[in-house]
Amino acid sequence: MKKYIVEFIGTFFFVLTIVCVVNSANVGMFAPLAIGSALMIMVYAGGHISGGHYNPAVTIAAIMRGAASAADAPGYILSQILGAIAAAVVGASLLDSGTLLGGGDAIPNMAAGITAEVLGTFALVWVVLQTATTKSTSGNSYYGLAIGFTVVVMAYALGGFGTGGCFNPAIAIGAAFNGLASWGTAITALVADIVGGVLAAIAFKAVYSGD
Amino acid sequence: MKKYIVEFIGTFFFVLTIVCVVNSANVGMFAPLAIGSALMIMVYAGGHISGGHYNPAVTIAAIMRGAASAADAPGYILSQILGAIAAAVVGASLLDSGTLLGGGDAIPNMAAGITAEVLGTFALVWVVLQTATTKSTSGNSYYGLAIGFTVVVMAYALGGFGTGGCFNPAIAIGAAFNGLASWGTAITALVADIVGGVLAAIAFKAVYSGD
Amino acid sequence: MKKYIVEFIGTFFFVLTIVCVVNSANVGMFAPLAIGSALMIMVYAGGHISGGHYNPAVTIAAIMRGAASAADAPGYILSQILGAIAAAVVGASLLDSGTLLGGGDAIPNMAAGITAEVLGTFALVWVVLQTATTKSTSGNSYYGLAIGFTVVVMAYALGGFGTGGCFNPAIAIGAAFNGLASWGTAITALVADIVGGVLAAIAFKAVYSGD
Amino acid sequence: MKKYIVEFIGTFFFVLTIVCVVNSANVGMFAPLAIGSALMIMVYAGGHISGGHYNPAVTIAAIMRGAASAADAPGYILSQILGAIAAAVVGASLLDSGTLLGGGDAIPNMAAGITAEVLGTFALVWVVLQTATTKSTSGNSYYGLAIGFTVVVMAYALGGFGTGGCFNPAIAIGAAFNGLASWGTAITALVADIVGGVLAAIAFKAVYSGD
Repeated sequence: MKKYIVEFIGTFFFVLTIVCVVNSANVGMFAPLAIGSALMIMVYAGGHISGGHYNPAVTIAAIMRGAASAADAPGYILSQILGAIAAAVVGASLLDSGTLLGGGDAIPNMAAGITAEVLGTFALVWVVLQTATTKSTSGNSYYGLAIGFTVVVMAYALGGFGTGGCFNPAIAIGAAFNGLASWGTAITALVADIVGGVLAAIAFKAVYSGD
Repeated sequence: MKKYIVEFIGTFFFVLTIVCVVNSANVGMFAPLAIGSALMIMVYAGGHISGGHYNPAVTIAAIMRGAASAADAPGYILSQILGAIAAAVVGASLLDSGTLLGGGDAIPNMAAGITAEVLGTFALVWVVLQTATTKSTSGNSYYGLAIGFTVVVMAYALGGFGTGGCFNPAIAIGAAFNGLASWGTAITALVADIVGGVLAAIAFKAVYSGD
Repeated sequence: MKKYIVEFIGTFFFVLTIVCVVNSANVGMFAPLAIGSALMIMVYAGGHISGGHYNPAVTIAAIMRGAASAADAPGYILSQILGAIAAAVVGASLLDSGTLLGGGDAIPNMAAGITAEVLGTFALVWVVLQTATTKSTSGNSYYGLAIGFTVVVMAYALGGFGTGGCFNPAIAIGAAFNGLASWGTAITALVADIVGGVLAAIAFKAVYSGD
Repeated sequence: MKKYIVEFIGTFFFVLTIVCVVNSANVGMFAPLAIGSALMIMVYAGGHISGGHYNPAVTIAAIMRGAASAADAPGYILSQILGAIAAAVVGASLLDSGTLLGGGDAIPNMAAGITAEVLGTFALVWVVLQTATTKSTSGNSYYGLAIGFTVVVMAYALGGFGTGGCFNPAIAIGAAFNGLASWGTAITALVADIVGGVLAAIAFKAVYSGD
């Protein structure tokens, strides 16, 4: 139960940051820096209790790699989705709008968007598995920096296509719940993110033999 | 006494950075990056002596969690407030203005502002307690990065409502003393910040059992 | 073989980030931050398997310094070049353009550009050898931050001359393959980068005697 | 001799970054981020050999604190000044201008500038002594991040007054040699920086008793 509370709190602040900065004209291109840093701080805060996933694609990949228990999957993923939905609701209340950004206008280039989701989530899960689950990097102080800044980097590089760069099914669901994206777009991103995460877990297992 | 000097110096430079960058048109949206980084450097500089609080909400939460002594509270909080006031005075002298920003115009959305103060301070104290006071993260090198960048993130996400994003009673008092905020706004922020910090300490104690 | 896969994946995401952010008007001067951070995350992800070179100039210098085996050189360098070419192709497909940036317009000041490539690559290799290959810094958590941010710094300082700031022969080749730079420009950068890296290895050996 | 080469190389790249980004209209307010990061990477690269001072005010304070030998002072300071001058010359050649920025126009508010130099150098030396010279923080991985980002923070907060924010006598001399500042301005900054550094060393000795 403690792990689930940590996953809920971390995902809540991660998605709240996304909702607030994406809707702020002032923040502009500082948004990816703020969003990735939000993941970084919550990974450092919760890593020692829940592993600091905040992302169903990470949870699935961590189970494939043997770094998390399959029995925890439902609790983790539900906590992440509830955290994202709560953040969408609180964010909408703060921003004083029924729906955010006027109801989910699709960004063009959906085909490129699917590729971008797969690639960005691949990179994120690759970095998570390499820096936070291996014996040879155990005890390091950089894992949160590496993981958070993967989102900074991928949001700058791959955030301008199709689905806007979720790299995380919980973010896709939160965005759909709130009206930031249509359900079709959100489900497309969600599936692409899981595919990217699974591919990264397979690639990780192909190159790592340190246990 | 040594701890109090460290708290004074750290809070002084933290608040001096706030006063100077908020009043600089050139700095613009780099201000949250500078402000959170100012906290980061002072946490790293003073952490080994005073714990590097620089924030009465952190001091109160650290006492609730058993990571600081209640007997130190008056000295810590007084040092923090004096550091913030000194920074407001020195900043005003550098900027050559009797009052800063023309006497405390309120930002709209005070209700949202209170929520933002509670949430932002919750996040800050949550990260402080998790990264700087637990046995399972002891000896890490990332605590200052995590703590400082929580302010970076929260200032980008939650700095545009009501009180402008203090997340720290000492900042609220320094701002009021100087004319950057009205006393009513400052006291509102101050109370909300203490509420957020206390809630984070309760949440921390609910999930952590590592000692 | 595992090392080569890691070098391919890391160079792929590093160069994909470059291709995408350099071609994005929105990203603007955040591009150096994104590019250097891309190197940082991949150095942290792959360092424990391949050393995280992603750069033939680094591989050559690491061999000169005795931190990598000469027998690995062909595999490393080929993986890096293939990763860069793959990123150029995928990036072009995402951006929906046959060639990127209209076919390699030269930036003026080619003489300054050669100096900038030599200096920037010198700095990069100097930081790599000092932070990632010495006994006295062994086990540190900052090597990826230092290496990645050397590219951030050098791209801000030295990215506006001649070849645009490659500091890495694999980047030069990827750019040429894609049309981002002419082959003449790319080969000029490539040679200057190797010269800078070799000079840094010589300088390192002159000052380090810690093994 | 090895220490002096490291001090020369580090100061060279630190000041070269300053000269190039301050003269680039494109870099704009990213300049403090690039400049402080340049110090960070060189502190990490050279810390294990020379201590990574790159700043006569740091060298003087380190000697006062007992963290460096007085016999090293002339060699360190000469290397730092020569590195700064070399960077000014190379920077001018890259930028293709006899003098940089048209010969040292003074920024207004020289009185505020002196205060800013004292305060900024105090903060920098305070962070250096606390994070890089104490037993209780020995072996940490954050010292370069803390030191480099002190310059990031102080340049954003205190870089707009009088002398432009040197916080380092070697930078002041390099700027004067090159025409970026007048000799009068440079010597004013130089003296203020030494005063700030000495005050920080005194404050450090008042609060630290960990050896």
